[in-house]
Amino acid sequence: MSQVTSTDLYEVTMVLSYLREDMRAPATFSLFVRDLPPGRGFLVAAGLEPALDYLSRFLVGRSDVREFAEALRRPVEDVEPLHGLSFDGQVRAVPEGRLVLAGEPLLEVTAPLPQAQLVETYLLSLVCHQTAVASKAARCVLAAAGRPLVDFSLRRNHGPEAGMQAARLCALVGFAGTSNVAAATRYGIPASGTMAHSYIETFASEEDAFRAFARTHPGPVTFLVDTYDTDRGVATAARVLSDLGRGPGCGIRLDSGDLGALARRARTALDAAGLRDVQIIASGGLDEYAVAALVRDGAPIDVFAVGTKVGTAADAPYLDAAYKLVEYDGRPVMKLSSAKVTAPAPKQVFRGPGLRDVIGLANEEPPEDTEPLLRTVMRGGLRTDPPDTLASARARFEADVAALPEEARRIESPMPPVPVVSTRLSALTTVVRHRIEARTRAGR
Amino acid sequence: MSQVTSTDLYEVTMVLSYLREDMRAPATFSLFVRDLPPGRGFLVAAGLEPALDYLSRFLVGRSDVREFAEALRRPVEDVEPLHGLSFDGQVRAVPEGRLVLAGEPLLEVTAPLPQAQLVETYLLSLVCHQTAVASKAARCVLAAAGRPLVDFSLRRNHGPEAGMQAARLCALVGFAGTSNVAAATRYGIPASGTMAHSYIETFASEEDAFRAFARTHPGPVTFLVDTYDTDRGVATAARVLSDLGRGPGCGIRLDSGDLGALARRARTALDAAGLRDVQIIASGGLDEYAVAALVRDGAPIDVFAVGTKVGTAADAPYLDAAYKLVEYDGRPVMKLSSAKVTAPAPKQVFRGPGLRDVIGLANEEPPEDTEPLLRTVMRGGLRTDPPDTLASARARFEADVAALPEEARRIESPMPPVPVVSTRLSALTTVVRHRIEARTRAGR
Repeated sequence: MSQVTSTDLYEVTMVLSYLREDMRAPATFSLFVRDLPPGRGFLVAAGLEPALDYLSRFLVGRSDVREFAEALRRPVEDVEPLHGLSFDGQVRAVPEGRLVLAGEPLLEVTAPLPQAQLVETYLLSLVCHQTAVASKAARCVLAAAGRPLVDFSLRRNHGPEAGMQAARLCALVGFAGTSNVAAATRYGIPASGTMAHSYIETFASEEDAFRAFARTHPGPVTFLVDTYDTDRGVATAARVLSDLGRGPGCGIRLDSGDLGALARRARTALDAAGLRDVQIIASGGLDEYAVAALVRDGAPIDVFAVGTKVGTAADAPYLDAAYKLVEYDGRPVMKLSSAKVTAPAPKQVFRGPGLRDVIGLANEEPPEDTEPLLRTVMRGGLRTDPPDTLASARARFEADVAALPEEARRIESPMPPVPVVSTRLSALTTVVRHRIEARTRAGR
Repeated sequence: MSQVTSTDLYEVTMVLSYLREDMRAPATFSLFVRDLPPGRGFLVAAGLEPALDYLSRFLVGRSDVREFAEALRRPVEDVEPLHGLSFDGQVRAVPEGRLVLAGEPLLEVTAPLPQAQLVETYLLSLVCHQTAVASKAARCVLAAAGRPLVDFSLRRNHGPEAGMQAARLCALVGFAGTSNVAAATRYGIPASGTMAHSYIETFASEEDAFRAFARTHPGPVTFLVDTYDTDRGVATAARVLSDLGRGPGCGIRLDSGDLGALARRARTALDAAGLRDVQIIASGGLDEYAVAALVRDGAPIDVFAVGTKVGTAADAPYLDAAYKLVEYDGRPVMKLSSAKVTAPAPKQVFRGPGLRDVIGLANEEPPEDTEPLLRTVMRGGLRTDPPDTLASARARFEADVAALPEEARRIESPMPPVPVVSTRLSALTTVVRHRIEARTRAGR
């Protein structure tokens, strides 16, 4: 699939018109999330690395032109003006891992209008969903309160590519591992995995299964103990581990039932068998609410494996994100209809202590004791910096989370900080609104 | 990304053990959805075509072996037994487009145990999410009651690949088009697109924008009328269309506000201008509930564009699907722990009139007046039939929907039909359960 034609048709119809009208002046588009979904006290900026990768490779080739023509049911010559179009604009963006709030631009693209427009759909498809998943995963990290988490989401994500992204985003916010082999090797994440119930079922007994597994895997092993009867499974696992003299690095996995109660009984049994080093891993439909409840109840679970609900960001699987034109040819623009009013002009987010943010104009003086969030990450179509690392993004995430107010951090009914709008942005919004309303009333 | 390493690590650890133990006897795994999510009266089987494509290409290459070894932190030699492993098994499956219910296998894989196990994760990642999205899209088709729908979901899907799938799945259940250019050309779906608010904003006036668009696009055009003031936008669109002598095939798009009221006023204005042929297209956060409400209220909307909520299956973004071992080496197996009991043995779904389904054993005699749903679609690793077409899948979908009881079809609080279990399957489940319980009690 071409990244160029993986776009909405209207980008093409608009850009053909811009080229015909010779409208190639610089345009700035701002990508932001209008409102946070319920159950979110913050968002984690994500998707920038793949977005920059996309922009730096963007080039409309001959086969793309043919596809566009086919989709438009127009002769190839009509679409030929798009041929060779690439992206040589500027991108200012919030680095991955930083927390962002409602209305704050995640990135702003400034480029000749046709370029800035043609990349809209693909940019949104990267940034929206990745920010949604990273934000969900971040809440699991908060819920786990220091205990390690691993990502088991691949099978339930929206296709294998979404699974790759989920593994990366979980690692970005501090997960200790992923079950996804391709993601583990591509992103340098520790790979994690045990065995399925089917494995146990193919042997004559649970014990036979555990022993066979240990024969193939001389290092640390984790036994799944809930295929038939969990308490018996734990006892069998303890016997096999003791017999084989295994312990440190090994574990048992609970995947169903009352995980807290089962973990307590398992801990007691393992300790009684002298297997204090054997870890208890819990999985099975976990999300931040379930993890928080288990932690609160003091369940002796060492590792939480989360999957489905995190990888799909199940309670908020999309964000109300927009890529809005805010300036064209030096003129600030905005949309007025109904509830979807947007503020004009290129912007900056000034972050104060405790995430007291001010959304202002890109060119205004930073308020005292604030730090600007958006940085120039691409100029002339080229990255200004070497590719970011997951470790750097994670460090930014951890620093912002440490500054987050308690009511935004909490798992139940979090309250996000509300950014204020700077006086200058507010004044400009009023001016532009009046100008547009006057023009509309005049029937233009 | 290799399709082979896009898998959970535990598939690899298990398969290495199976190979070491020489456990290569045939295993049957059954992929099914345990329960339907709330708000679903049925599911639409989907994802089989890409799944068969995946299986027919499956081959563990040298670089896959290296990746597996890296993930396992083991020497490459330890993983070498996987090298060259391909899929030469049998697949029985419900063809795409057919309706399926809770507990009914979507597909069953029978192959030497290592092969059948190693393909688990990727198969689930294709079939679960595609069935979820197709089922959501199908409800939109029912809600639209014959009016055409188009897919605008690409920008909010879980990445561009998920966007490709969403476009295909919407077409499979009868959508008239997609905004996604790559999907339109790959799958032969009509491409659909208009213009964004940003397009209007780059011109000095809405009228200038409409006229410029029409200059570039001599065929049918659709004008977005809600950038500033919708009623004025409609009047401007009507004036431009009349001036240019355009009409048939043209349209206006409403993307915000009270779509029903705005559509009524727009229809009146267009008709008064002699533009009875100009269509009204509605978009903006629509799902089956919103579409049904607009249809019920008689809103004069000709085409519904749905996106975000359908492409992400927002209210049920995952399905509780499993890939369970049901038979190994001729011995039926099942899992007993907690609520996740599974029924043993290869199965068949016998469909009676009105979706009165019986889940039985694959080898039992079909009950009277029923049709078996699962067909053999792959044998010896090769497809038994030429690739399926979207048109055939759509025809199957339409036939099953026509037979669906009213309470399962309805948009609000649908009630899915509940399949019954055949006497033979029920008896076998009891026998296997007792055998396993006795063995577990005996401490094996």
